Amino acid sequence: MIHRLPTLQGVVKQLQQVPFLASKNLYRVLSHFLEMDPAKIDAFCAALKSAKLNLIPCSRCFVWQERGQACLFCGDTKRDTSIICVVESWQELLAIERTEGYKGLYHVLGGTICPLDGIGPEDLTINQLVSRIVHPVKEIILAMNQTPEGEATSAYIVQKLLKIDVKISCLAKGVPVGSSLEFIDRLTMFKALADRRPF
Amino acid sequence: MIHRLPTLQGVVKQLQQVPFLASKNLYRVLSHFLEMDPAKIDAFCAALKSAKLNLIPCSRCFVWQERGQACLFCGDTKRDTSIICVVESWQELLAIERTEGYKGLYHVLGGTICPLDGIGPEDLTINQLVSRIVHPVKEIILAMNQTPEGEATSAYIVQKLLKIDVKISCLAKGVPVGSSLEFIDRLTMFKALADRRPF
Repeated sequence: MIHRLPTLQGVVKQLQQVPFLASKNLYRVLSHFLEMDPAKIDAFCAALKSAKLNLIPCSRCFVWQERGQACLFCGDTKRDTSIICVVESWQELLAIERTEGYKGLYHVLGGTICPLDGIGPEDLTINQLVSRIVHPVKEIILAMNQTPEGEATSAYIVQKLLKIDVKISCLAKGVPVGSSLEFIDRLTMFKALADRRPF
Repeated sequence: MIHRLPTLQGVVKQLQQVPFLASKNLYRVLSHFLEMDPAKIDAFCAALKSAKLNLIPCSRCFVWQERGQACLFCGDTKRDTSIICVVESWQELLAIERTEGYKGLYHVLGGTICPLDGIGPEDLTINQLVSRIVHPVKEIILAMNQTPEGEATSAYIVQKLLKIDVKISCLAKGVPVGSSLEFIDRLTMFKALADRRPF
């Protein structure tokens, strides 16, 4: 029946392109927008356009920054410039920042190497990462997601850095804090045993 | 760190109001928008605004219709005007239309009675439903969701219609087609047994 309501079809097509909207939720989100005040729709659209206009990736580390302002990390003299944490995207960076336990710099790759999706190393910011590894950088932390693509990207970067004198580390693998050992998958348990630490 | 990027904070606040965006998905959706072409953002916003402007609820059945066009149901002479299917919202209507097995009219309530959320019968289109039950209407199908609120709303409507000579029916309850009996919940199984039909 939707094809008989062209305006509706137009907005449905737009919403279908938004990730993480399952087709069932899509109509609920649509209802939400249709029931909103027009002024609120305007505010929503204004915020989106303003974000698109005023948020740009930092030219060094590719973290989003406000146009005309210094990067939150590269421009912060209190951060430790001897260490760079490499993440796939901004979401992983947020997860690391939430720990409040990391004071170094970041490098956002913009994804992972994924030949099936046609994403090669040249589509990521790997070359820019390599060119950043000069004095005073001493360590690179590879904080990829624990997926085949993430691991492959890590391996590729490690190979790229073979000739450069820099320490390369990756996140510890093991049982999550607060978890029941009963429900831990086999590989994680194996890794937690193999990488056991002095108490 | 988000509070230090005011533009970002603005768009995050807007996205937080969209239903069915869990806080983790929110940043992925945001990344999607930030990586979009500005022209595509414009198209997205234009579609939203156009939907808000051009889609209005039918004054009789409260189904969304294009402004200036006849309602898809009330204005369709091929539909059976002797039967009205009462649904909570447009999403349930879509689910029924997908069956292609219903040719009557609809009535969208706009929600369910829910005192905890401050929604009473007067906030729904129940009075408008009652006033629609005149010749040639012979049957009302109550197609509420199987939730406490849906059931309570059905009960309220049934009581409202006590003095009106109209057949009131509701959806059959039982095991879903294609399901394994092993995983059916106790109440559904009880209902399926109690309402068993000749083979």
